[in-house]
Amino acid sequence: MAQIYDRVALIGLGLIASSIFWGIKRADLAREVRGFARSEETRATARDIGLCDVVCDDINDAVKGADLVVLCVPVGVMGTVMKDIRDSLKPGATITDVGSVKRDVIDQIAPLLPEGVNFVAGHPLAGTEHSGPRSGFAELFDNRWCLLMPSEGTDPSVTAQLRAFWEGLGSNVEEMDADHHDLVLAVTSHAPHLIAYTMVGVADDLRRVTDSEVIKYSAAGFRDFTRIAASDPTMWRDVFLSNKEATLEILGRFTEELFALQRAIRQGDGEHLHDYFTRTRAIRRSIIDAGQDTDAPNFGRVPGRKP
Amino acid sequence: MAQIYDRVALIGLGLIASSIFWGIKRADLAREVRGFARSEETRATARDIGLCDVVCDDINDAVKGADLVVLCVPVGVMGTVMKDIRDSLKPGATITDVGSVKRDVIDQIAPLLPEGVNFVAGHPLAGTEHSGPRSGFAELFDNRWCLLMPSEGTDPSVTAQLRAFWEGLGSNVEEMDADHHDLVLAVTSHAPHLIAYTMVGVADDLRRVTDSEVIKYSAAGFRDFTRIAASDPTMWRDVFLSNKEATLEILGRFTEELFALQRAIRQGDGEHLHDYFTRTRAIRRSIIDAGQDTDAPNFGRVPGRKP
Repeated sequence: MAQIYDRVALIGLGLIASSIFWGIKRADLAREVRGFARSEETRATARDIGLCDVVCDDINDAVKGADLVVLCVPVGVMGTVMKDIRDSLKPGATITDVGSVKRDVIDQIAPLLPEGVNFVAGHPLAGTEHSGPRSGFAELFDNRWCLLMPSEGTDPSVTAQLRAFWEGLGSNVEEMDADHHDLVLAVTSHAPHLIAYTMVGVADDLRRVTDSEVIKYSAAGFRDFTRIAASDPTMWRDVFLSNKEATLEILGRFTEELFALQRAIRQGDGEHLHDYFTRTRAIRRSIIDAGQDTDAPNFGRVPGRKP
Repeated sequence: MAQIYDRVALIGLGLIASSIFWGIKRADLAREVRGFARSEETRATARDIGLCDVVCDDINDAVKGADLVVLCVPVGVMGTVMKDIRDSLKPGATITDVGSVKRDVIDQIAPLLPEGVNFVAGHPLAGTEHSGPRSGFAELFDNRWCLLMPSEGTDPSVTAQLRAFWEGLGSNVEEMDADHHDLVLAVTSHAPHLIAYTMVGVADDLRRVTDSEVIKYSAAGFRDFTRIAASDPTMWRDVFLSNKEATLEILGRFTEELFALQRAIRQGDGEHLHDYFTRTRAIRRSIIDAGQDTDAPNFGRVPGRKP
């Protein structure tokens, strides 16, 4: 594949940035990748494992001359980071981000955008419960969706170039309205994460069942919840605070439905339960048919190549 | 391994029974296995794929002369099945079951037990979202827990024999009090399943997000929920109805905790959220350390051998 950008800057060197880096190298998508992380320890680790061609101690050295700047920091600090780098951006450069919430990020970044710099918000729908510079692998984005939200008036060629970049990383790319994105993700990701966090916390709190029993007998069900509930705390705190409206709306609907099922259990209404569970089973079938998962015993998850 | 029983009868030929059968054959745990399923279609499938040495059209032919009878039917019909077979049971035979709820099953079966027949309730903590005679595989129980609840006065040698059988299937075996079992499972399995069912139902109901969007963008989080929510509807209806008290208690605690997190989101209390998520992450770490899961990218799930 031909190189899509000459120089790329990765700001924040966690799971997503490190996976982008290994993906760039796998497909030769850029000539040079510079990286910056706020923490000295993260920068030292990055240098140690060869993450980025150049690891910069100053964020401005990372973005100067970059054709693409990818903000891979928690949603809550996007605006702060943008303030730090705006004076060093190369005219004609493209800024993008990988945040899980889009309206709030756009509202933080758009007002700070210098003349002649492009901003296309982005969100790769990919991740694991691990975080930090050592957690990335080149295959993370393979066959996963990446959603892009170009700012109004963005030259279509700018968006097309970023699309080619994400396709080079293995993603399927679509454009979506930011508000709609936030509602869809509240359903498919944000509310499920909060629910998993809650259930794992409840188990830990319960006095009559010891932690060691919960852990020992964490059969399917709870075990999957703990995996979700192990995701990065800072990232998820910011997601819930910045997608407040949509998340609370979905949680409200969830509570309503949960109460109805609790009542069915209390009243012994087996038909209601059976009908409900039959319907949800059909939804699972559609997801498999849509190619977003498999019904193979290992759930189709292939070990990623670790650098 | 030496054969543990001469003849085993499997009643109900779904995921668990078919996995037991292939596991018996893998380790040569019995000389002959007879099977019975209520549905003619299931019996035809079983004959077609070689599931059981003999598939019987009459449940009494399956249990007559059996040294071990394993009831692999939904929790709600355990008593009915016991009534059907009690007059055909061999003196000295052992009855066990694989139901996910134990107090209710014991209350159904114990009063119907003929003189000289032993009953040791059981629960292998293993499963997938698939059901039916084709879904089993020999490795399902490998390194999973199987909990046994011997009836009062059961000869220890009877329990020891059943323990050896489950160990031969690959399980780690422990004895547990039935009521405590039901509470532990309400936390680690029953409540998480109901929550997953609920969330998947909410997503399907929401009018502003289409089903196809939910399906297409079912990133981690929701995707894991749909897998749980695809489990057998009849089995789970019976689980909730027969473990009503414990399930409702845990769901009550869950709702309380969820309300506290919703309030934190509404009030922008990032510290509360961050603390909570940090705590749940630590619990996940304990589960991996306890060997009940791995942090490998494929979650340590190895494809099972399908017959």
